[in-house]
Amino acid sequence: MQPHLLAEIDSYHAHVYFDGAAERETAAWIRERVAERFSVQLGRWHDALVGPHSRPMYQIAFAVDVFPQIVPWLMINRQGLSVLVHPNTLSPHDDHLVHALWLGAALAINGAMLPRRIETHDSLIDPIRPNTEPTLKA
Amino acid sequence: MQPHLLAEIDSYHAHVYFDGAAERETAAWIRERVAERFSVQLGRWHDALVGPHSRPMYQIAFAVDVFPQIVPWLMINRQGLSVLVHPNTLSPHDDHLVHALWLGAALAINGAMLPRRIETHDSLIDPIRPNTEPTLKA
Repeated sequence: MQPHLLAEIDSYHAHVYFDGAAERETAAWIRERVAERFSVQLGRWHDALVGPHSRPMYQIAFAVDVFPQIVPWLMINRQGLSVLVHPNTLSPHDDHLVHALWLGAALAINGAMLPRRIETHDSLIDPIRPNTEPTLKA
Repeated sequence: MQPHLLAEIDSYHAHVYFDGAAERETAAWIRERVAERFSVQLGRWHDALVGPHSRPMYQIAFAVDVFPQIVPWLMINRQGLSVLVHPNTLSPHDDHLVHALWLGAALAINGAMLPRRIETHDSLIDPIRPNTEPTLKA
């Protein structure tokens, strides 16, 4: 069997989850500091459940070269929040449920909402456009 | 509150866990392919429980610059095994229990066996000496 190649990974998403007022405040703290430090596309803040997610969250989309900066930073700065980091390959289902990594407690993901296979990388349709202006060293 | 800095991370360990004959075979498959692709220090194979770990495993020690190669590779190639990736800061306890990331199901770690604080990075005492000779592209 041939292993999967890193070239199959087009980009990454991190999902920062929060539950209750205290975690919501921590999530906002993280979001602000991420914006100051990393060239990423910060997604909308979702207080209501969206997509396959089982808690309020926001998404951080980033290119592969940001992975070694933002993932370790979240590892040491998540303050108890659950964070899902998944690659974007041609299988959104597997990306969320098989290829994912979790910081903190893993939460439920509704796999039935995710396609098993897509024809082209999402980023061709919806490119990652960083919307932060980082000025601080991580 | 000031966030933790990436500079606090000296290096990383990945622990590849296995349980039963089929997972043991998968773990060996992963070990062989890691050796072919990454400049890392492959630790001894442990069929018996060691340290704070609750399953047989082996350790892969690596420098920070290997993180963006080997972690994504393990994400898409772990074939159902549980893998713990933790940074090495000055708190081995927190590194395993707070700063860690998991691929697959998180397993029990005996935090009572891990110091809360050490005076100097382990790598000053026990440097990471890669023992692989990678020849293949990941």
